[in-house]
Amino acid sequence: MAMTLDMRRARSQTDVDVAIARDFLYGNREKWEEHNELVKIMCEDPTFDKSQRLYMSRSGRYNNGLRMMNRIHELQDKHGWSSHQMTKAASLMDEPTGFHLHLVAFEPVMRSQASPKLLARYEALVRNRGILGCYLQTELAHGSNVSSLETTATYLPQTKEIEINSPTPTSSKWWVGGAARTATHGVVQAKLILPNGRDVGPHLFFVQLRSLEDHHVLPGITLGEIGPKAMNGNTAVDNGFARFDHVKIPAENMLSKFSQVTEDGRYIRPPHAKISYGGMLYIRSSMVSSGGWTVAKAVTVAIRYATVRRQGNQDSGGLERQIITYPSVYNRLLPILARSYVFILLGRSLEKAFAEMAERLSNGDTTLLAEMHATTSGLKVLVSTSCAQDIETVRRALGGHGYSAYSGLGRLYADYVPAATYEGDNFVLDLQVVRAALKAYSRFVSAEKPSICNLSPSTQYLHLLLEPVVETNAFSWQDPGSCVNLLEQRAVSLLRDLVLHDSDRDASVEERVSRAVTEAFVAEQIMAYIGDIQNGLPEKSAEVLRDLLHLYLLTTVELSLADLLSFHLLPLPGAHGTDISGDASRELRKAVQRLCLKLLPQTIGLTDAFGFTDWELDSALGVFDGNVYETLWNKVQTEPLNESEVPDGYKEYIKPVLLRGQRMAAKYGAKL
Amino acid sequence: MAMTLDMRRARSQTDVDVAIARDFLYGNREKWEEHNELVKIMCEDPTFDKSQRLYMSRSGRYNNGLRMMNRIHELQDKHGWSSHQMTKAASLMDEPTGFHLHLVAFEPVMRSQASPKLLARYEALVRNRGILGCYLQTELAHGSNVSSLETTATYLPQTKEIEINSPTPTSSKWWVGGAARTATHGVVQAKLILPNGRDVGPHLFFVQLRSLEDHHVLPGITLGEIGPKAMNGNTAVDNGFARFDHVKIPAENMLSKFSQVTEDGRYIRPPHAKISYGGMLYIRSSMVSSGGWTVAKAVTVAIRYATVRRQGNQDSGGLERQIITYPSVYNRLLPILARSYVFILLGRSLEKAFAEMAERLSNGDTTLLAEMHATTSGLKVLVSTSCAQDIETVRRALGGHGYSAYSGLGRLYADYVPAATYEGDNFVLDLQVVRAALKAYSRFVSAEKPSICNLSPSTQYLHLLLEPVVETNAFSWQDPGSCVNLLEQRAVSLLRDLVLHDSDRDASVEERVSRAVTEAFVAEQIMAYIGDIQNGLPEKSAEVLRDLLHLYLLTTVELSLADLLSFHLLPLPGAHGTDISGDASRELRKAVQRLCLKLLPQTIGLTDAFGFTDWELDSALGVFDGNVYETLWNKVQTEPLNESEVPDGYKEYIKPVLLRGQRMAAKYGAKL
Repeated sequence: MAMTLDMRRARSQTDVDVAIARDFLYGNREKWEEHNELVKIMCEDPTFDKSQRLYMSRSGRYNNGLRMMNRIHELQDKHGWSSHQMTKAASLMDEPTGFHLHLVAFEPVMRSQASPKLLARYEALVRNRGILGCYLQTELAHGSNVSSLETTATYLPQTKEIEINSPTPTSSKWWVGGAARTATHGVVQAKLILPNGRDVGPHLFFVQLRSLEDHHVLPGITLGEIGPKAMNGNTAVDNGFARFDHVKIPAENMLSKFSQVTEDGRYIRPPHAKISYGGMLYIRSSMVSSGGWTVAKAVTVAIRYATVRRQGNQDSGGLERQIITYPSVYNRLLPILARSYVFILLGRSLEKAFAEMAERLSNGDTTLLAEMHATTSGLKVLVSTSCAQDIETVRRALGGHGYSAYSGLGRLYADYVPAATYEGDNFVLDLQVVRAALKAYSRFVSAEKPSICNLSPSTQYLHLLLEPVVETNAFSWQDPGSCVNLLEQRAVSLLRDLVLHDSDRDASVEERVSRAVTEAFVAEQIMAYIGDIQNGLPEKSAEVLRDLLHLYLLTTVELSLADLLSFHLLPLPGAHGTDISGDASRELRKAVQRLCLKLLPQTIGLTDAFGFTDWELDSALGVFDGNVYETLWNKVQTEPLNESEVPDGYKEYIKPVLLRGQRMAAKYGAKL
Repeated sequence: MAMTLDMRRARSQTDVDVAIARDFLYGNREKWEEHNELVKIMCEDPTFDKSQRLYMSRSGRYNNGLRMMNRIHELQDKHGWSSHQMTKAASLMDEPTGFHLHLVAFEPVMRSQASPKLLARYEALVRNRGILGCYLQTELAHGSNVSSLETTATYLPQTKEIEINSPTPTSSKWWVGGAARTATHGVVQAKLILPNGRDVGPHLFFVQLRSLEDHHVLPGITLGEIGPKAMNGNTAVDNGFARFDHVKIPAENMLSKFSQVTEDGRYIRPPHAKISYGGMLYIRSSMVSSGGWTVAKAVTVAIRYATVRRQGNQDSGGLERQIITYPSVYNRLLPILARSYVFILLGRSLEKAFAEMAERLSNGDTTLLAEMHATTSGLKVLVSTSCAQDIETVRRALGGHGYSAYSGLGRLYADYVPAATYEGDNFVLDLQVVRAALKAYSRFVSAEKPSICNLSPSTQYLHLLLEPVVETNAFSWQDPGSCVNLLEQRAVSLLRDLVLHDSDRDASVEERVSRAVTEAFVAEQIMAYIGDIQNGLPEKSAEVLRDLLHLYLLTTVELSLADLLSFHLLPLPGAHGTDISGDASRELRKAVQRLCLKLLPQTIGLTDAFGFTDWELDSALGVFDGNVYETLWNKVQTEPLNESEVPDGYKEYIKPVLLRGQRMAAKYGAKL
């Protein structure tokens, strides 16, 4: 189909150079080309066709996931993909499966925590999927509180074995992706029990679950499906339960890079209490960029649809208005567009920082661990909470058709939303973020000579404790730096107030402090991105991207108004020539609106810059050419239920109801 | 299974008399008994068993819906149910179907807008389901903007017929519940075109869609399924599309109670422009109480689960703490419990008001219409936005298991969430709420002698324009009246500011004003409920219910902090003996927390008062006896995928991947 007029016009009016913005998002031209290359191969391969998946049963979806997994290995051989490319291709499958847990959980944990001896034997098998693994941590009765897990791993010195056992029904491993049907092996988290009966807490153990001959479950182990997920999410993932009845494994199967049990049963503790957290931090740090890209998809669909959907009042051309021109629509969508950019950029920074930390960690250097833990925890909460909400906000902004499965956004939401819970429930992680912030605060204020140079990036905002606040007359909503300063003041104020009332906290203070310190950190990062943009990109594109990041800052300030006003941090409107008795937030809201209106002509360019193909978006409302109604109509024709005109249950259920009603109505003289 | 210790203890410690609170929620003892009677009959009938529905295909779910519809008619005959009881039973089916649209949309619109002649012929058929109807309004390209619908209904004076036509693909009726496969008839909204070519706007027409002999679609009509819904919601509803190719119907099939076409083609306009809005108002007003009851289910599940789930730190008894005792958990759940109570009470008030209006309307008296329109629009937005968010908040508060389909909350959310879009997109309705509020405001301030007596309930807050604000030293968070006063001040301030900047609105002002005026209205209603409670209920129960409504008010104030602080409406903390430089909102948050802690021992009683059976909740986590893990375990055993140990795709897809990997690993010397 040809591009619709609205879409053509929108593309022609953008100032942002799509290729430049795209390279900026992907990191550089090579990374985009690598991505694009993979997409091309996959979207032309019928194995990765998505047109039927909405109509498949759960086992059909699971089976189709296996089919894709198998095909992706064939393609790896054919095209000589690196491990990195393979992992990218797996995520392009756009269907989370048990296999993905091998890549994102099992393999990293094995690589970072298995002993050299265990790795020598299994590393190549793990890397090439000669075995398929899963990661068994959560239990039926315990999740976020890992220290209370019930599964035991008892060292038996006589045979140099370890016995894995599920002592109670509630100790059953639960929610384990890939465990129900796919994985052959797993890493089990269990309390290590020494021969003297001492429990030295949770450790990791490599356990074979199924026969490599025929895939049958090994003796002593019970595996099964835990059933469908809410909102039909993650349908193709075989989340499983697992119970172990005194299953013996060789002692060397303990992942013992950092802590060990000697042959005679003594425990050797790790050099740093949290050195084994590396794997978890890897998943959390990768969640920032994946959240950003997920919302990028959602908002691309919405901005395209809102560009071609016309409704309501007539515009100057005599047509109904494009819905994106309505304040209630652009005011919802553009801040989300800004957030998706910011999270993608943050994700890249974080992956770099993680790589550095992992490098050091592998040499036993734990100096970066605490900072990485603080940053990834805060960002995991912020990003997963925001992204889940933003996907749903975007879906609703599409109006009625957003509720069609063909919009693609329901699936995005249902698959994404557990991110708020896994890898540490957001409300539990908040406590850890606050703990780290309080520690940094007290270290800073109790230092003999507090110095800004000693502040880590995640606590940079504490510089305000030494430096004077920006003068009110220098304040301007037009200045991103003013927003950053406000967000830093908010973090410091909330934290200081928490210290003051530490023994009498209110019930939401951790959530608010966690958000405040994380948003201060993000705001500071954005100033750095703005610098990069202004130094590295052509002027027009740079201005658009700068505006977009500025919009992120302004709307973040807007969302934190209750905090800012509670601590009297918002500059009084009187200082800017407006009536002091009026709405103190109005100037901010008008600044948001002005920036939205300025960015409006850029939105199609900014979403095109994500580089999504129609195959990647899989949304009738987000098609590149703007022919949304035709696409929706064509989709409807593929609905198998439309093959018959009269439903199966007609004779058995509909006809009797009608006949009964007609009989009864006849008593009142009604006839047809 | 016996009741768990935690649940038994929780039940024993409640001060609220469950039966009294239950009767209060249902209206009176008789209504509860009627409800309970129906539940008993249905939950014992195998037709309404819910244990398999999660595993059914879409067509299986649809067919099962038909089966229930048919059975419910048999039960009506058997038990002599009234129409009212029948409708209640249909909602207890707990599975929205096309048939429900007959009850909630088709039947009311026929009854209120068909001519006496048309009713004489069809009313008994409609009432007894001798025909099954649907309501065809939304089109592919138009929803909320009804005035731009494209479907035409042209009066043909020669034959005294009306020709229904879909002139374009985008004029296809879309989203019509029941149209795809169930309904035999429908009411079509179409632009009435007079013989002189004049378009007199949208009117309603009664059209037969399918043969009553064999259910085949009649000539000139194309019907079909529009495909699955987002998040697998409303799976059993056959939402359809419909196209009309010059379909002729008798002229008397126009629903002409209020406006008519004469035989010679002249148009007789209705006595009041909005007199036909009655049907829409009916649906909107019923959405208030159904939203409340839906959230009641969700929060019952969550409070029960949070009472028996233990995690984290040890409590005084040496056990891990019940998760409901964590601030981040009770702070999320208890305000939601309060909202469910409030919405249920509001729903009942509204239904009463609606009945009075409908009674008057049927006599051509439109005096109550505008007020009803303002109230139902504002409440529809408030309730559907809150409830959708609350269901999801509750689901996440359950942690990992909340994402299991067995929690039941994913389904609740997926089915509920379109309520934010249908019957007027919330963001579009906001505009109408604001318009009505502005009108009332300007009428009041421009009146020669503005009098409080002339204020309708929905604009009662305007009394503040005449009366002085409560003195600061009389202000107390312990006083519900102080909260009401704050919420009224907020409504007035926002509205006054909007008038001031009417030509330069910010982008979210309608959303904020709509919420502010509606919440002021709700707050005033709550004062009346508190009065009823204190006059009508025994002391202990009255205190608990009063506290719960007070919590609603406090948390509503908390959620409107940005408004209140922006307009300098929050009493300064200095006035209450605390440090003025600190957090201005802290006292409020502590008041919320104190009330939550006071209510904590009452929560099981307050949720038991909803009277839900396990069959109604259909949630493994919300079982009455608290045996959540056993129930979850038993549910998992019903998952059909657990019937085979090795998945179907093993040989074709898993084994080849493993063998390839083992081959490749062998090159590196790895062997198993």
